[in-house]
Amino acid sequence: MMIKPPKFIYECTLKFAVFFSALMFVTCNQKKGVANESASNHTDDFQNLVQYVDPMIGTAKMGHTYPGATAPFGSVQLSPDTDTIPYELDGHYNPDVYKYCAGYQYDDTTIVGFSHTHFSGTGHSDLGDFLIMPTVGELQMNPGTESNPDTGYRSRFSHKNEHAEAGYYSVQLEDYNIKAELTATTRVGMHQYTFPKSEASHIILDLTSGIYNYKEKNVWTFVRVENDTLVTGYRQTNGWARTRKVYFAMAFSKPITKYGQENYDNNVYKGFWRKFDQNTNFPEMAGENLKAYFDFNTSEGEKVKIKFAISPVSTKGAINNMNVEIPHWDFEKVKEETQNSWNSELNKVQLDPINQDEMVNFYTAMYHAFLGPTVYMDVDGKYRGLDMNIHQAENFTNYTSFSLWDTYRALHPLFNVLQPKRNSDMINSMVSHYNQSVHGMLPVWSHYANENWCMIGYHSVSVIADAIVKGNTGFDAEAALMASVHTAKVPYYDGLEYYMEKGYVPEDKNGSSVSKTLEYAYDDWAIAQAAKKLGKDDIYNEFSERAENYKNVYDEKSGFMRPKLDDGSFKKDFDPLNTHGQGFIEGNSWNYSLYVPHAPNKMIEMMGGKEVFSQHLDSLFSMDLPDKYFENTEDISREGIIGNYVHGNEPSHHVVYLYNWTDTPWKSQDKIRMILKAMYQPKADGLGGNDDFGQMSAWYIFSTLGFYPVAPGSDVYALGSPAMKSATVNLENGNKFKVVVNNQSEENVFVDKVLLNGKELKEPFIKHDDIIKGGELNFYMSNRPNKILYNK
Amino acid sequence: MMIKPPKFIYECTLKFAVFFSALMFVTCNQKKGVANESASNHTDDFQNLVQYVDPMIGTAKMGHTYPGATAPFGSVQLSPDTDTIPYELDGHYNPDVYKYCAGYQYDDTTIVGFSHTHFSGTGHSDLGDFLIMPTVGELQMNPGTESNPDTGYRSRFSHKNEHAEAGYYSVQLEDYNIKAELTATTRVGMHQYTFPKSEASHIILDLTSGIYNYKEKNVWTFVRVENDTLVTGYRQTNGWARTRKVYFAMAFSKPITKYGQENYDNNVYKGFWRKFDQNTNFPEMAGENLKAYFDFNTSEGEKVKIKFAISPVSTKGAINNMNVEIPHWDFEKVKEETQNSWNSELNKVQLDPINQDEMVNFYTAMYHAFLGPTVYMDVDGKYRGLDMNIHQAENFTNYTSFSLWDTYRALHPLFNVLQPKRNSDMINSMVSHYNQSVHGMLPVWSHYANENWCMIGYHSVSVIADAIVKGNTGFDAEAALMASVHTAKVPYYDGLEYYMEKGYVPEDKNGSSVSKTLEYAYDDWAIAQAAKKLGKDDIYNEFSERAENYKNVYDEKSGFMRPKLDDGSFKKDFDPLNTHGQGFIEGNSWNYSLYVPHAPNKMIEMMGGKEVFSQHLDSLFSMDLPDKYFENTEDISREGIIGNYVHGNEPSHHVVYLYNWTDTPWKSQDKIRMILKAMYQPKADGLGGNDDFGQMSAWYIFSTLGFYPVAPGSDVYALGSPAMKSATVNLENGNKFKVVVNNQSEENVFVDKVLLNGKELKEPFIKHDDIIKGGELNFYMSNRPNKILYNK
Repeated sequence: MMIKPPKFIYECTLKFAVFFSALMFVTCNQKKGVANESASNHTDDFQNLVQYVDPMIGTAKMGHTYPGATAPFGSVQLSPDTDTIPYELDGHYNPDVYKYCAGYQYDDTTIVGFSHTHFSGTGHSDLGDFLIMPTVGELQMNPGTESNPDTGYRSRFSHKNEHAEAGYYSVQLEDYNIKAELTATTRVGMHQYTFPKSEASHIILDLTSGIYNYKEKNVWTFVRVENDTLVTGYRQTNGWARTRKVYFAMAFSKPITKYGQENYDNNVYKGFWRKFDQNTNFPEMAGENLKAYFDFNTSEGEKVKIKFAISPVSTKGAINNMNVEIPHWDFEKVKEETQNSWNSELNKVQLDPINQDEMVNFYTAMYHAFLGPTVYMDVDGKYRGLDMNIHQAENFTNYTSFSLWDTYRALHPLFNVLQPKRNSDMINSMVSHYNQSVHGMLPVWSHYANENWCMIGYHSVSVIADAIVKGNTGFDAEAALMASVHTAKVPYYDGLEYYMEKGYVPEDKNGSSVSKTLEYAYDDWAIAQAAKKLGKDDIYNEFSERAENYKNVYDEKSGFMRPKLDDGSFKKDFDPLNTHGQGFIEGNSWNYSLYVPHAPNKMIEMMGGKEVFSQHLDSLFSMDLPDKYFENTEDISREGIIGNYVHGNEPSHHVVYLYNWTDTPWKSQDKIRMILKAMYQPKADGLGGNDDFGQMSAWYIFSTLGFYPVAPGSDVYALGSPAMKSATVNLENGNKFKVVVNNQSEENVFVDKVLLNGKELKEPFIKHDDIIKGGELNFYMSNRPNKILYNK
Repeated sequence: MMIKPPKFIYECTLKFAVFFSALMFVTCNQKKGVANESASNHTDDFQNLVQYVDPMIGTAKMGHTYPGATAPFGSVQLSPDTDTIPYELDGHYNPDVYKYCAGYQYDDTTIVGFSHTHFSGTGHSDLGDFLIMPTVGELQMNPGTESNPDTGYRSRFSHKNEHAEAGYYSVQLEDYNIKAELTATTRVGMHQYTFPKSEASHIILDLTSGIYNYKEKNVWTFVRVENDTLVTGYRQTNGWARTRKVYFAMAFSKPITKYGQENYDNNVYKGFWRKFDQNTNFPEMAGENLKAYFDFNTSEGEKVKIKFAISPVSTKGAINNMNVEIPHWDFEKVKEETQNSWNSELNKVQLDPINQDEMVNFYTAMYHAFLGPTVYMDVDGKYRGLDMNIHQAENFTNYTSFSLWDTYRALHPLFNVLQPKRNSDMINSMVSHYNQSVHGMLPVWSHYANENWCMIGYHSVSVIADAIVKGNTGFDAEAALMASVHTAKVPYYDGLEYYMEKGYVPEDKNGSSVSKTLEYAYDDWAIAQAAKKLGKDDIYNEFSERAENYKNVYDEKSGFMRPKLDDGSFKKDFDPLNTHGQGFIEGNSWNYSLYVPHAPNKMIEMMGGKEVFSQHLDSLFSMDLPDKYFENTEDISREGIIGNYVHGNEPSHHVVYLYNWTDTPWKSQDKIRMILKAMYQPKADGLGGNDDFGQMSAWYIFSTLGFYPVAPGSDVYALGSPAMKSATVNLENGNKFKVVVNNQSEENVFVDKVLLNGKELKEPFIKHDDIIKGGELNFYMSNRPNKILYNK
């Protein structure tokens, strides 16, 4: 099913608002006295790009995106949950839970409520904090079921009465005749509910609801009704984050007339509360599983608004966040300002597309890329650290939710181009994490002051090295390097002890051993590059040596990377098409064997030379992956693969660009264009796999622009085939980098010639400085491969 | 069984230390340049009074005191727990739990371990945080049972190898041949364990252990092994305090060689921790029910020391508390300094006793009176408030654990004499509680940033009024009065709505209605007195009227206070000897009917006049209370009553002094001396009832000195019969108030004459100013009543 083109939404409601917002933005920047001409040129060209963002993309099947309202990199992601499926079903894992990583599935027909925190595109989840649902009529405190929504507070809805924009979401809740509208600033969600006339209008706050809800996920919930328009509290969970606490402050635009809780708690307070009726109008509630309700009388069409602020620190922090970010009740103003912010972020790349679908794809990819990592501190700079103490972020913005196994590949490199300040602060956040870590480790997959250890490698070091090598060092580079070195030497971490001793992880000691060995080797190379840049020869030498370890798991006989045992022999019964039990994770050996991004030439040599390798890549894209193997390919839909090339998961993201290291770089070009078309479509089920907090989108952005960072930690980008007519990258330093594509069309997918600042390129590569200094990259396209290009 | 006289301990180990401490104290005060002569006189007379303190008193039967180590008003109460009985047994209430309010019962034969927080003498409990037990040999992680201690880590012990002093405790753990010694500063407990030679010496940290442990009392526990000598973490509970969190930092004097946890948790983390062996040497532990162990090798006689700091704020706060309070590893020095502090507190009254037992009773009473409320803030003034936010105590010390139904009677009045600065700060703490309370209420029974609502009344107002009336206002008196007024008008609190409407609490609307009506009326009078002092006539008039409400529950026919129903009729089937279901709580009508402390003259008039009333009191003391009624008398042993006079519980504490308002004040005198002798004995089972955080002890101190505050909120003390030869009260203002008793002996219990500063008293009363200005009160005693004294 196709969703409504987002332009239509604009035509209805937004045209003037956004136009006004754009004006505001200019005024604002002028007021601040922006220093250089380029920056003000930027604002002169300011375009309404929010109109192209469609948050519905990826909300069906495996995309795991959410359609709700959020500000760029916002702490609050206020979004509808169409189900809150429990992790356990009759005591067993419930496979349906996986669909609800972002709380919303496009095919569902009911909305349970609107919760304030969501990951975007992840392959695991948590969060879903503070679900709010407005209802009228008889008070129901349980959500009910999709098959019989009347059994609970959830409501039917229809996509035809649903609109999603960057920073705004609305839906008609059919069961209650309530129009729900959502917007958000960085730390505050704002709700606007248009009620019918009713003597029994309710706002339900369900603290038991959550995403990936284990039976005992809630550790504690706490609610205080401070007065008749302000409620505070917190939710403490033991989910994917082991010890996670989010505080809130919720303000109502009109006084509540009555409130209460229904007790769903096994753990009832055994003190002297029998003095009171705790269930009605008693302003203190606490327990493992709280649900509260707040009642109003409403007139026909009356808008009840809620400001809902969160904080990692305290309810005091949440109240302060609310007061600073939304010191008024003007819903439209919040929406406008947030959409302004989005426009400002989106204008960092201005695109002239081949067709309008590409505008939607591109700016939705930009939107998804700018959803996280998310700001994780109060407006006063305080945040909760890994040690559970409150820390002050000194001169940086603290971020959380680092899905690093995914995002080190292209998202953080993209930030080094489009968001260098934020990327530096993300590294500051990682180094703070390191300083707070009792292991002395940088984040692996961390969120909300917790390390969840998800996936493999220690890819923070890649993010750090990439920034150092590219000269983006708004952080203490030496401290970050030392943190990287220390992280790479924690012996009890995931086979590292063996890796350091033997040069590979033995499969019989630690599973997924090949994937780990390959990724450690790459990470080690990245550390070496940073050390080299900083003149630390000892570290460079030490880690350059470790970077060669990929060779230790290469099986010359089979021509694949293959698990090795502790005794040095290869594991028997090896199947390079299978993933499970073969020494790999989230990728079979066919894909993972190509994972030596830091030494393509050596790898190609090892695998039989350029010609053999080029054909090997051809096979990957053309072979058939039988269903029994596909089922082992995680996190993607069938659309997420091409042959046996698995674009829907990360290990292959650099693969198509490897042709550049053979004599057949032209073979990458049509394939890149094919992947862009096949894997990214402007519809709810348009993503071929989890968006993975923007990594999939970052691939799309880079590849559309015509270049890609095959090995973060190098300052080199591999050229591909740009998929637009022209693009201007408005850099933070005020420079502009233009990519102009001549003779571009849907058919002309092959590159005939490339000029950088008027000078023809002899190799399919550009450098980071070429971009950052500003300049122009001219592609000349053709419908036939230029087989001697770059080989002249 | 008699415990060893505490003097003996001193002879063995302490004589020189304490002598040296006393010298230190003088030096210290001189260094600080104490301003006035009186204060330095005070130090000239400085006596070693710690030698008379016997912390074992009250540890048997119903005293509910603990024998462990603590500083005056200290946050840490480091004390042995002889059992950690669960609240529930086969799903039902386990009556044995009540014995263990302070964790220790003198008749027990094993020690489970040493935990860091204990209430003193309370009739309900909580706490018992962070139990530590040293063991050797095979690691056992469960406590085992008293009947078979070898099944767990607990150890046998004997009182002959056990010593308890103010600020110091030691015991030989027989099963392990370990000598355990404990001392403490305000926020840090210090352990010293003398181990035998062993390759397997363990320190167990059991976070599942606690006092009044409900099945699901632990909400969350969290441990970080920061390095090989420092461990941090917290324990969050849902016990008597609904949401309570205590942080800790634990330092070892020598590095641990190995550590780990055993998992007793239903709620196992479901994230990606399978990467690690979490059970051994993994520095992050978290879950509902953690137990950890730390291993050492020890040589024969090796002392392993532990500093264990707690904080209401954070582990960072705990570490800071440790560093500030004990920046070294000298156990003896800590003990010495803490015993110095105790001596300094005890020297506030210097006594010349009739016999040496009285010295033990008196200074142990002083010790018990100065155990709480306890300091509740970090050394930097930060503390957790009722709203769970972190607050800064500005210019006051924040206290917690207000057992106000008990302590408003004599303990806080005693503080107005001996601890005016602390009492002002306790009021500052109460007003802060009020400011943080979502109910707008002062504390009822509050501890650790929680209100547990225990017992009845709103007696914070009495503490505030008493301080205001007595001119002890190191707090904002007007703000405190307004907080009192607001507290007294919260309609949903415990029948207040009815009380305000009808002038009494109807028994059919809200139980224990007579007790509540009487105590509200007294509290209201106290508010009126404070208002009068501050010139707030409206409040004075309003609450003076409410103070008359005691009349509304007086039943002229029976001559008793009696429960009234909503319709205005008295409840039928009334039994003034029974407590349960009769409209009273923790006291029958015989005792409670005398509870009009603020208007004895009017009460006596109402009850038939002076002569009838005097005889009525005689009956109380001489009648027989049948067993079936005694069983309804809570919290006391059979020794806690005289006739039907229940001294072991609080409602009667003023009763014996009521003779002063009749023409027979002499009748109080022998009874006071009898109560002092009968209810307070220098042995483990020497207390007739719960010490109730010092209230019982405060009664002893006042009565021994010869006067008692019948109605806090008045500046008048009723005279009794002093039980010593002379006493000097060293006041904080530098003045001295001396009580000299002439012709004193065990037999001469009647007062023949009283002179205040040489002038004979015509009435059996003195005023607070008489004390605070300094002066001398001379009693002349006789073995026969002087029936015309005060009636001249």
